[in-house]
Parts: sequence; C-alpha cells; structure tokens
Amino acid sequence: MEKTTATKRIYSGKIINVRVDDVELQDGSMSKREVVEHPGAVAILAVTDNREAFFVRQYRKPIEKELLEIPAGKLDEGESPQSCAARELAEEVGMAADELRQISFHYSSPGFASEKMYVFLATGLKKVDVARPEGEFLEAFRLPLAEAVSMARNGDIEDSKTLVALLLAAGIFNL
Amino acid sequence: MEKTTATKRIYSGKIINVRVDDVELQDGSMSKREVVEHPGAVAILAVTDNREAFFVRQYRKPIEKELLEIPAGKLDEGESPQSCAARELAEEVGMAADELRQISFHYSSPGFASEKMYVFLATGLKKVDVARPEGEFLEAFRLPLAEAVSMARNGDIEDSKTLVALLLAAGIFNL
Repeated sequence: MEKTTATKRIYSGKIINVRVDDVELQDGSMSKREVVEHPGAVAILAVTDNREAFFVRQYRKPIEKELLEIPAGKLDEGESPQSCAARELAEEVGMAADELRQISFHYSSPGFASEKMYVFLATGLKKVDVARPEGEFLEAFRLPLAEAVSMARNGDIEDSKTLVALLLAAGIFNL
Repeated sequence: MEKTTATKRIYSGKIINVRVDDVELQDGSMSKREVVEHPGAVAILAVTDNREAFFVRQYRKPIEKELLEIPAGKLDEGESPQSCAARELAEEVGMAADELRQISFHYSSPGFASEKMYVFLATGLKKVDVARPEGEFLEAFRLPLAEAVSMARNGDIEDSKTLVALLLAAGIFNL
C-alpha cells in the first residue's frame, strides 16, 4: 500500500487527466507518484468463419507513425466494455458479432497509467452499415489469422493489445 | 501523418512529460492530441535451467493495487535496452544472465503514450549481489514457467508486458 497524503491536479483533458500524488512508502519515507488517469479501453479480435482477422492501420501521434492494430477504442462514460466492443467493431470495421467473448483483462502501463484494457474475441460476424466518427482516419483490412499469429511471434506486431490478443488466439485456435 | 501546428507543454516530471499538440488531420481539419512522453522501458523474462521464471509483486499507485509482473524498469538517459535489462535483472531479482535475447519490441499504449517496451528473455542465470535502489519495495519469487504460461492463458496475469513475455515464451519453449 502507498498512502496518499496529498494530490496535485496537473491537467484535466479530453481523454486523460494527470495528477501527482505525495505517497508514504512501506518504510515510512515519502515519495511522489505521477499518475495518468485514463477511462479504460477495449480491443476486439474479430475472426471470420474462414479464419480471417480484422485489422486497422492508423497514425498514432505519440509515436509519430502508423501502427497495425486490432479494432479498439476507449470507453465512453457509463459504457460497459461489452457495449463498447460492439460499438467499436461496427464503427471501425463495419461488423456485428453473434458472440463477443472477453479473453483478457489487463493494465497496459501500470507504472504510470490507470488504463484498463478489455480484450474480446468476436465471432459469428455480419456486415453492418455504421458511419465512422468524424476525425477518425484508419484503413481496415483482413489477414489470415494464422499469418497474423506468425507476425506476432516474429516481432512484426508492435502494439501490446494486438500482441496479447493474437498470442491468446494462438492457444484458442490451436495455431 | 498528422502535422503538428502548435504544441503546449503541460507538465515536465520525473518519469513523464505531458503535452497537447494541435494537429492537422488527413482531410485538412484540425484536432488536438494529448501525448504522454515516456523514456521507454524494458521487461525481462528470466528462466532458470530447470524452467522456473522470476516474478515480482509490487504496489502500483495508478491502479491502487499490487500486481504480479516480470522484472522491469524504465531506461535511464543514454542507457541501451540491453544494459537496462541487465541492471534491472540484478536489482530486482539478484541475477545476471549469460544470454539476454530481445523477444519483443512494442508500444504499451500508443493511443496516448510514447512508451516503448523492450522485452528480453534471460537465460544462463547466476546469482549476483546488488543492492535494491532506495524507495523500491517489491517481493521477488519464482514460479514454474509452465504454470506461469497457464496463468497467462487463463486470465490470471493482468500486466501487459508480462502477458506478452509469457505467451511468446510458450512458443519458444513449446508449452
């Protein structure tokens, strides 16, 4: 346990808030903790009946490059992870799923951020027509799941949630 | 590409910096991007000759709970990922490795943070005597690698870098 003795609010933004806590450590000494507050997010590995998976490629400002990822997005206020997963799947790749099963819950960067990541496996896919939200630019496409799992094992996937999803899928689909 | 037209510095801290960029999107419209700058980090899956892996349990302020993780730490200025991995392995679990092989490079939260994560597999382990840095409180222990891989597959590992490391190790060690 690290008891908070004071909190300084640094920034309240659109997606993140930042604060610095004064904390009392196990030995009674004092330290500071920089904390990024995040609303949480979902990621969806959507697999078709013929074992293809959906991916998106989009520009990520923090790393100044395009990244290959599975569909994902942050939770709206009061939104359940399950509903968020269904919404993002429709918005980003135009699909609805008969089954949406949570296969992982994890923290992406627990050293400095509160972000929780819920990863879903979506199967029984059907096309739906949903408009992409304004200001979202991404390219959506499919890859054979087996090929994507090989990419994950060979170091060709550089996004943590996508790595976790594909490596778990390898076990689920015996790849 | 998202062209930065202005940058506002919000916070310069010990581990993170925060800025907000005004960016021009693909269609010429303007938006804002909140960016957490991070120095990058390493994580080490250290496996003994009899297939046990080292873990640490430590309190993580952003999520207000203890988390089971592999040894990890952030890069010091000018430090290579390889040197950082050797240093953290010694500091956190008191081991040196004959072989330290990078098995993943990924971004932990590319939507809002620049953090790069380098994951190493450490083998040929020998005990070393190194003092733990002040203010670091963690419990170190070993688990059979096969058991840890099962935990990762069953949802009992909630740290992203640890999940990636264990699921990649499953392929490497045929587990």
